[in-house]
Amino acid sequence: MSKARKTVTLDGPFRMHRGGCIQSPTLAYETWGELDAERSNAILVFSGLSPSAHAASSSEDQSPGWWEDMIGSGLPLDSDRFFIICVNSLGSCFGSTGPASVDPVTGKPYRLDFPVLTLEDVAEGAWGVVQHLGIDKLHAVVGCSMGGMSGLAYCVRHPGSASAFVSISSATRAEPFSIAVRSLQREMIRSDPKWQDGNYAESDPPLSGQRLARKLGMITYRSAEEWRARFGRERSTDEVRGSQFKSEFAVESYLENNAQKFTGGFDANCYLYLSHASDLFDLAEYGGSLDAGFRRLKLDRALVIGVRTDILFPIHQQEELATGLAKVCPDTKFVRLDCLRGHDSFLVEMDAFRPVLCGFFESCDCD
Amino acid sequence: MSKARKTVTLDGPFRMHRGGCIQSPTLAYETWGELDAERSNAILVFSGLSPSAHAASSSEDQSPGWWEDMIGSGLPLDSDRFFIICVNSLGSCFGSTGPASVDPVTGKPYRLDFPVLTLEDVAEGAWGVVQHLGIDKLHAVVGCSMGGMSGLAYCVRHPGSASAFVSISSATRAEPFSIAVRSLQREMIRSDPKWQDGNYAESDPPLSGQRLARKLGMITYRSAEEWRARFGRERSTDEVRGSQFKSEFAVESYLENNAQKFTGGFDANCYLYLSHASDLFDLAEYGGSLDAGFRRLKLDRALVIGVRTDILFPIHQQEELATGLAKVCPDTKFVRLDCLRGHDSFLVEMDAFRPVLCGFFESCDCD
Repeated sequence: MSKARKTVTLDGPFRMHRGGCIQSPTLAYETWGELDAERSNAILVFSGLSPSAHAASSSEDQSPGWWEDMIGSGLPLDSDRFFIICVNSLGSCFGSTGPASVDPVTGKPYRLDFPVLTLEDVAEGAWGVVQHLGIDKLHAVVGCSMGGMSGLAYCVRHPGSASAFVSISSATRAEPFSIAVRSLQREMIRSDPKWQDGNYAESDPPLSGQRLARKLGMITYRSAEEWRARFGRERSTDEVRGSQFKSEFAVESYLENNAQKFTGGFDANCYLYLSHASDLFDLAEYGGSLDAGFRRLKLDRALVIGVRTDILFPIHQQEELATGLAKVCPDTKFVRLDCLRGHDSFLVEMDAFRPVLCGFFESCDCD
Repeated sequence: MSKARKTVTLDGPFRMHRGGCIQSPTLAYETWGELDAERSNAILVFSGLSPSAHAASSSEDQSPGWWEDMIGSGLPLDSDRFFIICVNSLGSCFGSTGPASVDPVTGKPYRLDFPVLTLEDVAEGAWGVVQHLGIDKLHAVVGCSMGGMSGLAYCVRHPGSASAFVSISSATRAEPFSIAVRSLQREMIRSDPKWQDGNYAESDPPLSGQRLARKLGMITYRSAEEWRARFGRERSTDEVRGSQFKSEFAVESYLENNAQKFTGGFDANCYLYLSHASDLFDLAEYGGSLDAGFRRLKLDRALVIGVRTDILFPIHQQEELATGLAKVCPDTKFVRLDCLRGHDSFLVEMDAFRPVLCGFFESCDCD
């Protein structure tokens, strides 16, 4: 385990948003920079579904993080000025308690006995970390993809606990296209006989189902427009070209290589729980409508960034989010980016996102 | 077997486009209307991947066909004026020879010993039927979805054998997004242990993989916009709500019901072959470029219809096809429809398509 990873255990019962309870969950997190004397310079970052808390390298862990070019000295989330916190989501498997963890009550892994997970629970896990760090008010909550919804959950449940909210390629709730995609990804894993109703051996997980799910993920994380320009009808150069029904085209090899790299690193049950949680979140559950949900927020500033080619969290959802935020927080900015790489752009087209975040955090001159 | 279904066996070896040979394949087809004395009023219809030759009802088979509202007396493909032919694609499993058929040479089903199938082979199968019927020149070739590419293959390989070409929600070739989707659908089936490298028992096919593939199909056949309006975040009313990871949302039940209905009706190996054939076709293989391919065509008139919300054969591909056709066939019309239901619109939003086809075939006054 990396020395950069810190943990906190929230002693006592942790009541889950949809019922059920887990005992004394652990939350793993990493931080960058120093908390100032007034404890007023903290930024909490919520990740997407699959990353760990390792958002960027540090002296304690020099391996690149998932948002390496965004967090650090002189970068938009400037560790010379801010104290940046990234928490591994509750329900995940990189140090935080989740379905793959041992239930202290039974001494056995939770697996499917883990209660239904929601992004409210993810938010409350992070809230526990922030309390542990003695921070009353965050300078900002920043959330990417699923993390944008976790961030909304955080802000709506703890109004006034953050000055600013930044949503990146996220939404107030999932639309049926995204629900259908995620439901099918979960079914792919559950259909793998090795899944065994969640009771797979750690050494023999449902890799086949996970690979299929990852490939469908990639199809929705990128854009048809990118692939048209990048692959066209180029043939694969891979020596092993697989069966007669695949790997003739470069795009097929690309998906295969990506799936091979990703799969195995993420626990299948944790994936199922977090994926389902992404479907469940709905800001409208706070007060009965989106407008009522927005009215519960108490923010000084907000920023919504979306990408034109995103099909998982489409641009009209970013606009809807920004419009709703602006009604309760006049200092709301909406930025529509013309990146080619769809939903994943915030991870792979950093040059487009950096100036926007620099401007918002008055960090540097990159715009 | 329906009395409407006719068959013709093409005696002797049938050489496949990518190599290999099958012996005396059978083609199943249906017809509507009467061939006139000059044999000049025939319209050949190429279907998408999954339908049979039963495109419409007739006195011999009154069950509704897959294009029921388009073919018949007083309809755009007017059986009072035209002799309409629909052939079950070579490689399919509704009467035409395919991987599920018995190889007359070995006496056993072909399964994966069936040679690589291409849309050129599908076109040549239909060509055989047209020759059998004694038709020198077709009034028109009409192709929907994959059938549009089969139709292009027909026209480019037999220049001058059809006066008109109508492409509906099709393209000159598949783009990487669609290839990725179909490749993943095939992998879902191949990953089902019941597939057994194609040697599944007829009574125990890889239904689980086929269901997954059908669901992914539906996600790409319809549109996010339709589902937003139709389902939103509506919950399922199904009594059996399935596992904790599914069937909470109406869109999930919709996919499940559709997959249950469809699966089992189509042979898994046939699906793999036809799906792969859809990836392979490329008009640019005729002469080395799309322009060269178009130049081989010899058409008097052409019509290209596409739908704004189609993600499988996106609207820009319809435009590209129409532009290319117009260069070699000045009497080419391009119609962009604003239907909500994506790629499937030609099957489910007939009211939008009918007037366009009526206009083209001067059939009725519905526009």
